[in-house]
Amino acid sequence: MPNPDIIGREKILKVHMRKVPLAPDVEPRTIARGTPGFSGADLANLVNEAALLAARRNKRLVTHTEFEDAKDKVMMGAERRSMVMSEEEKKLTAYHEGGHALIAINLDASDPVHKATIIPRGRALGMVMRLPERDHISLTRAKLKADIAVAMGGRVAEELIFGHEKVTSGASSDIQMATKMAKAMVTQFGMSDKLGPLAYGDNEEEVFLGHSVSRSQNMIDETQKVVDSEVYRIVDEGYKLAKKMLKLKIKDLHMISQGLLEYETLSGDEIINLLKGVQPVRENPDDSSGDMGSAVPTAGAKKTASKKKPKSDGGMEPQPQT
Amino acid sequence: MPNPDIIGREKILKVHMRKVPLAPDVEPRTIARGTPGFSGADLANLVNEAALLAARRNKRLVTHTEFEDAKDKVMMGAERRSMVMSEEEKKLTAYHEGGHALIAINLDASDPVHKATIIPRGRALGMVMRLPERDHISLTRAKLKADIAVAMGGRVAEELIFGHEKVTSGASSDIQMATKMAKAMVTQFGMSDKLGPLAYGDNEEEVFLGHSVSRSQNMIDETQKVVDSEVYRIVDEGYKLAKKMLKLKIKDLHMISQGLLEYETLSGDEIINLLKGVQPVRENPDDSSGDMGSAVPTAGAKKTASKKKPKSDGGMEPQPQT
Amino acid sequence: MPNPDIIGREKILKVHMRKVPLAPDVEPRTIARGTPGFSGADLANLVNEAALLAARRNKRLVTHTEFEDAKDKVMMGAERRSMVMSEEEKKLTAYHEGGHALIAINLDASDPVHKATIIPRGRALGMVMRLPERDHISLTRAKLKADIAVAMGGRVAEELIFGHEKVTSGASSDIQMATKMAKAMVTQFGMSDKLGPLAYGDNEEEVFLGHSVSRSQNMIDETQKVVDSEVYRIVDEGYKLAKKMLKLKIKDLHMISQGLLEYETLSGDEIINLLKGVQPVRENPDDSSGDMGSAVPTAGAKKTASKKKPKSDGGMEPQPQT
Amino acid sequence: MPNPDIIGREKILKVHMRKVPLAPDVEPRTIARGTPGFSGADLANLVNEAALLAARRNKRLVTHTEFEDAKDKVMMGAERRSMVMSEEEKKLTAYHEGGHALIAINLDASDPVHKATIIPRGRALGMVMRLPERDHISLTRAKLKADIAVAMGGRVAEELIFGHEKVTSGASSDIQMATKMAKAMVTQFGMSDKLGPLAYGDNEEEVFLGHSVSRSQNMIDETQKVVDSEVYRIVDEGYKLAKKMLKLKIKDLHMISQGLLEYETLSGDEIINLLKGVQPVRENPDDSSGDMGSAVPTAGAKKTASKKKPKSDGGMEPQPQT
Amino acid sequence: MPNPDIIGREKILKVHMRKVPLAPDVEPRTIARGTPGFSGADLANLVNEAALLAARRNKRLVTHTEFEDAKDKVMMGAERRSMVMSEEEKKLTAYHEGGHALIAINLDASDPVHKATIIPRGRALGMVMRLPERDHISLTRAKLKADIAVAMGGRVAEELIFGHEKVTSGASSDIQMATKMAKAMVTQFGMSDKLGPLAYGDNEEEVFLGHSVSRSQNMIDETQKVVDSEVYRIVDEGYKLAKKMLKLKIKDLHMISQGLLEYETLSGDEIINLLKGVQPVRENPDDSSGDMGSAVPTAGAKKTASKKKPKSDGGMEPQPQT
Amino acid sequence: MPNPDIIGREKILKVHMRKVPLAPDVEPRTIARGTPGFSGADLANLVNEAALLAARRNKRLVTHTEFEDAKDKVMMGAERRSMVMSEEEKKLTAYHEGGHALIAINLDASDPVHKATIIPRGRALGMVMRLPERDHISLTRAKLKADIAVAMGGRVAEELIFGHEKVTSGASSDIQMATKMAKAMVTQFGMSDKLGPLAYGDNEEEVFLGHSVSRSQNMIDETQKVVDSEVYRIVDEGYKLAKKMLKLKIKDLHMISQGLLEYETLSGDEIINLLKGVQPVRENPDDSSGDMGSAVPTAGAKKTASKKKPKSDGGMEPQPQT
Repeated sequence: MPNPDIIGREKILKVHMRKVPLAPDVEPRTIARGTPGFSGADLANLVNEAALLAARRNKRLVTHTEFEDAKDKVMMGAERRSMVMSEEEKKLTAYHEGGHALIAINLDASDPVHKATIIPRGRALGMVMRLPERDHISLTRAKLKADIAVAMGGRVAEELIFGHEKVTSGASSDIQMATKMAKAMVTQFGMSDKLGPLAYGDNEEEVFLGHSVSRSQNMIDETQKVVDSEVYRIVDEGYKLAKKMLKLKIKDLHMISQGLLEYETLSGDEIINLLKGVQPVRENPDDSSGDMGSAVPTAGAKKTASKKKPKSDGGMEPQPQT
Repeated sequence: MPNPDIIGREKILKVHMRKVPLAPDVEPRTIARGTPGFSGADLANLVNEAALLAARRNKRLVTHTEFEDAKDKVMMGAERRSMVMSEEEKKLTAYHEGGHALIAINLDASDPVHKATIIPRGRALGMVMRLPERDHISLTRAKLKADIAVAMGGRVAEELIFGHEKVTSGASSDIQMATKMAKAMVTQFGMSDKLGPLAYGDNEEEVFLGHSVSRSQNMIDETQKVVDSEVYRIVDEGYKLAKKMLKLKIKDLHMISQGLLEYETLSGDEIINLLKGVQPVRENPDDSSGDMGSAVPTAGAKKTASKKKPKSDGGMEPQPQT
Repeated sequence: MPNPDIIGREKILKVHMRKVPLAPDVEPRTIARGTPGFSGADLANLVNEAALLAARRNKRLVTHTEFEDAKDKVMMGAERRSMVMSEEEKKLTAYHEGGHALIAINLDASDPVHKATIIPRGRALGMVMRLPERDHISLTRAKLKADIAVAMGGRVAEELIFGHEKVTSGASSDIQMATKMAKAMVTQFGMSDKLGPLAYGDNEEEVFLGHSVSRSQNMIDETQKVVDSEVYRIVDEGYKLAKKMLKLKIKDLHMISQGLLEYETLSGDEIINLLKGVQPVRENPDDSSGDMGSAVPTAGAKKTASKKKPKSDGGMEPQPQT
Repeated sequence: MPNPDIIGREKILKVHMRKVPLAPDVEPRTIARGTPGFSGADLANLVNEAALLAARRNKRLVTHTEFEDAKDKVMMGAERRSMVMSEEEKKLTAYHEGGHALIAINLDASDPVHKATIIPRGRALGMVMRLPERDHISLTRAKLKADIAVAMGGRVAEELIFGHEKVTSGASSDIQMATKMAKAMVTQFGMSDKLGPLAYGDNEEEVFLGHSVSRSQNMIDETQKVVDSEVYRIVDEGYKLAKKMLKLKIKDLHMISQGLLEYETLSGDEIINLLKGVQPVRENPDDSSGDMGSAVPTAGAKKTASKKKPKSDGGMEPQPQT
Repeated sequence: MPNPDIIGREKILKVHMRKVPLAPDVEPRTIARGTPGFSGADLANLVNEAALLAARRNKRLVTHTEFEDAKDKVMMGAERRSMVMSEEEKKLTAYHEGGHALIAINLDASDPVHKATIIPRGRALGMVMRLPERDHISLTRAKLKADIAVAMGGRVAEELIFGHEKVTSGASSDIQMATKMAKAMVTQFGMSDKLGPLAYGDNEEEVFLGHSVSRSQNMIDETQKVVDSEVYRIVDEGYKLAKKMLKLKIKDLHMISQGLLEYETLSGDEIINLLKGVQPVRENPDDSSGDMGSAVPTAGAKKTASKKKPKSDGGMEPQPQT
Repeated sequence: MPNPDIIGREKILKVHMRKVPLAPDVEPRTIARGTPGFSGADLANLVNEAALLAARRNKRLVTHTEFEDAKDKVMMGAERRSMVMSEEEKKLTAYHEGGHALIAINLDASDPVHKATIIPRGRALGMVMRLPERDHISLTRAKLKADIAVAMGGRVAEELIFGHEKVTSGASSDIQMATKMAKAMVTQFGMSDKLGPLAYGDNEEEVFLGHSVSRSQNMIDETQKVVDSEVYRIVDEGYKLAKKMLKLKIKDLHMISQGLLEYETLSGDEIINLLKGVQPVRENPDDSSGDMGSAVPTAGAKKTASKKKPKSDGGMEPQPQT
């Protein structure tokens, strides 16, 4: 049930890579390091997608570039470039994703941003992808709080920029995820001082990030009320933190969102550079991450999340913010 | 699970159209644009129905007209012209549908009216059909509030014209839809300021407009009470808005409803023209949308919803008001 | 799922009638008009029963008379003449059915009385049959309120005539039906001003008269309490209305009940005539609706409910009052 | 589903009786009259048991006697004479059954007592059998109240004679039956003035005496509380009535119970005579109702319940009191 | 469903005994009398086990001794002599069983003690076996109260001798049994004066001692609260009674427990003699009830429970106290 | 269902050991004594793993060493040495496990510590293994309280050393286990003085440590509230006890945790020696418990938990603390 760790992933990758012609720049260990949380099936899929991309790009060998592009597809779903979005929707999405990204960048306990995009993928209009720097099993209170604030960032940005009536249903999965994390903190991880180190709600469970989240059944109303108010407090603190940060750094929010509107996809490094005034370099900005080729990828867009700074709080599986 | 987008629909249509003799006026892209929310099966059905209609009308080629008529049948169900309605019932239905239509026309955030009819279809005595102008995924708060007001328009019109005792059970599906939308706003979309950006009720779900709507289980009474009062407030605001608008524009309501009584079916453009004093043009008013032929359709009845004005709030799948 | 409308019924009848020798007085359209709410299977059964009756009556052709008798059997179940009732029970049943009938006759919004009988049929000791004048889909508030008062008429008559201790369990299905109708008005049809145009109780449903009635689950006690008190109010108003009417018209109640004791079965017209002092004409009162023949039926007993007066509120499927 | 009425029973009996050699004293109509509530299978069983008894008694023809004995076996289960009861238990049982019988005899609305016995049958230590005088479908409030008091009679007698600590679990089925009847009066038959003519608790049902008894689900606590207190009131009134009557007629209780201890089985008439000082006539008291023969049964023991006095409230299926 | 009574058991035993060579001292009737509550399968098992024991003991004929030993095995499960208990555990078990036994001996309404043992059997560390003197169907209030006190005796003895912290989880089945009995008294047997002769909780049932015990569902909190407090009161009275008796007779407790530590198994008579200062006679104390033979069993250990004194309250199936 | 006791285990071991070449130092009885709680399948697995280890270590015979290593693997899951932990995570894990171990060592009623490790096994980052000294069936109140305190030790150590924000989700299974034990004490074992010797919550059960733990359904809120507060009190007392002990012995905590960081795995004896200043002796500290051989194991690491001191409270199955 637990996904393979880095050594396991390297072994699995090597098995699948035997069947494809690899370019000299492909290092299984590097790819293994960049795919925490991937299952064996994900890794098989990754190698397969990379080979398909190389074929479509008329390359004789599968290069590191293809593996990086394939990784995005496996993690975030296929792009849906055919989907027609109005300018209004694009703008709304850019600020929503910009909000997620800006909070993630500013909170140490969050995993670093891998990529942000407003190209629809799967059912989502856009996405912010974060990647942990190492495999993790347990999560600190600080990281859980940061993740909730990141989840709130999208909705908060919508509100700040477009106002109350233009707020969309697009934040519903962020809302659900934040509520679940807060509930797990309170009922399973013993992270509410009010409720103490006890487990609350003991029968039916669903798996959440490798931990099981109780559905809070079998609690009496009085207890559930305290649970609910603690969950509310935790989510609300995340919401307020996000609001405070975005208000304070509204210029940064505009910069990231404008960047997304212009380039559609930005890597974590590109976002950080953007905030320093450095524009991303694109050979052909209209085709920066297309399926149709471009043998030489832009440097920035293909790099994984760089080490922001030494972090000790651990991380979790890659978690896209829609 | 998500339905195809415009490009997907065009491709699917082309596949099915290969098997039928098309008139030169049929443009797959135009039809794809006019069928947001259609599934692959709906599109196959559409082409099939159009071919059947052409056969019944003794046409050698399937024209755009057949596709438009087929679209109505697929979206709204087959007409049940055999059903005998009393004059009283017809009048009641005309005002009920007139109420829906008038609210939809007057609220910017609503999708434009495609068609209104008092010809029974399926189990409904009448219908107002709205069509979004583009595929949408997320819904703004403004659009959801408008849709609730549109749903209330039917019942409100009954009350205003026929009085308290003559109000019918025919509004039950409008009532159910409005309640569901309001509940999703409160429990899933974080659109109640009182309850904040949290998810409420976390186990069983049913799909609603592509979003999942919680059944609100596992909430304690205290929380459910706030949820219920918020849901009540939102629906009630929609009801009051509908009442205010219909009272203000009662002349328009009479005009649309009289138009429906006279012509049975009116397109969105015809309704707008009617309110400007322009009567719809019908070659043979008694057979305006019959199955039995009429090789040349009336212009108005066959046009899709025209662009009312630039809209930015998006739309949803075609949603008939019964 | 919806039963055939008048045109559908006529078609179905014609198909089945091909197999039986029809007398010239049989008109499919007339029979179709008199059988709203019949399913296809009911209609097949009707033609079959009529043919059997004609055979048992040694008739060469199936006449309109047989179709009328067969209709009663299909709608109300077979007679159970073998059942021995005490005089006390017969009298109690006559007043119970008389109560239903008298309320139905005096409330405009009720469908007209087709027949009343104290001959046991199926599990019932007696029955009042009402027939709508046309197929209906939606029900007005006025009709629902009238139907509840009619349902209460039986129990009220028992109380008025026999007193508190002699009240029987025979009203239990009336009570259940009235409670269900009131609940649908409140939770589905938006007909409680207190609860407004919202749907209450959202998961399990059972079909009632073509509408679905919620089982009122998932409501918090506070809401359910208002629902319950509204349901109570509506049923109680029907009960009080029935009591007031029966007290006021107690002479009429005696007349109808005595008529039922004497003739066992009375048509709607016969009841109305009886109240005007006109006794029903019977060739052989002891055998007025027997299975054993009587080639020439009594005029009154075979006529369908006559038009009382112009009615606009519609009706519902035939609904026996036990 | 409904059991056959008297005419139906007579027909069924005649069919089965064709296969057995009948004595001239056997009249199918008489037996049909004495077996209300019997199903077709019960009647087949009855004829079969009568034939077996005759064989065991070395009779050439099956006489009325065998049919009467067979009826007891079918209604009450086979005797379990092998069961060893202590004197204490026999006495307790005699007073328990005596209590049931005395209440039944003194309440007009109860069906007359057919037989009382302290010979164990099935799982019961003793039994009082009542038989209605005619088939009934509906039950009056008065009869239901009487039946509850009869049910309470057994426990009350235990208490009065043996005291608080010697009260047994043997009354549990009486208690359950009384509670069910009271609940049906309140929730289904509209017989609580406080709760009015409404149905309470609307989903799951179990069949009780041909009526369905709600399990009282889906009620809010406030309503359920009133239901419960009404049910309690009704059962408690029955209990108090039984206590008052048994205290008042404690001599009669002793007489019946002593009679049961002496004769083990008493018919309704014998009990009434006993209270008048007339002892039952037994040819061989030790073998009064044994399986082993006695070609000439005692007169009294074989007679069905005699007509106590004109009764108008109807009855129900034979209902043994354990 | 009900188990066979004494006569039935004798017949069943005879059938099975035909297949085994019986010693002259075996009397089926005696064994039948000593096995109340045994099912047909239990009796078949009993004969089988007796034959196996005789074979293992190298006997040509199956004697009464083998039947007695087999009875213990069928009633209490196989011994688990291999299980290693610490001295502490043995002592704790001896006092636990001693507590059960002492209460049972001192309460008239309890069935007499058949045997007490600290040899682990099945999952239990020890056991007290009681046997009724006759088959019973109903239970008096006095017997139920005595059984609850006996159940409490084990835990109370642990507390008195070893103190609060050394109390074990071993009493959990006693606790469960006592709670169930008290609940049945209150909800099914009408033995709570506060709740009266009504049945409480009406849907799901599980069989308990041949009676069905409601799971107390569908009660409102207010009613359940009274039920719970009555159940608590009854169990608590049993607990207090046990405590009072054991404190008063603590010397007897020590005597029984020391006896158990010394002899491991004691018959009811041996316990009574022990309390009078008479030590049990054992030929070979270390092998008193082993499976490995000993052709001549000790007299005392093989005798069934003697008649303590005339008892009138009845009994129940053999009920081991663990 | 119950696992084999020591004699059963010895027999099972002997059966499986026949198939492998045993070194003279292997004594089945010794291994049986050290594997309480093992099932038959566990023992088969144990022998198999020992044989595999010997093969991998190029040994001709399977020695006691292999059986000890195999026992760890069967009890704790395979090591996951490939997993990369940051220094921060290693340190956090060392203190978490150190907390468990220190409490277990200081509480007499706890089973002695067999081993502590920070090598990830299965899904756990580390583990403390305790082993009872004998098979047990029942648990004393003292042992249950000790086990809860041991479970709390991990989280408490995290808090004391790393502070509030760095607390991790890794304690969730400790929290769940402690809550379950406290609930069983209160609802099944009668160990709450407030709630007395009654069973609470009577329908659904799940097995916990061979005892069944109620899910606490069917309790009214008022009762559940007392249950919840008792459960809270018990867990909280364990938490406070753990906090008090760790604060008091914080030097010992540092010593154990540093030892774990240095040696990764420590036996119970090594921990006790460490606290006395005696460092564990390792031939090759980097490979102390590796799979890759080392024919002669370190003495300390291979010894089972030594007898700390005479204990009387019994134990339970091996219970790892993660």
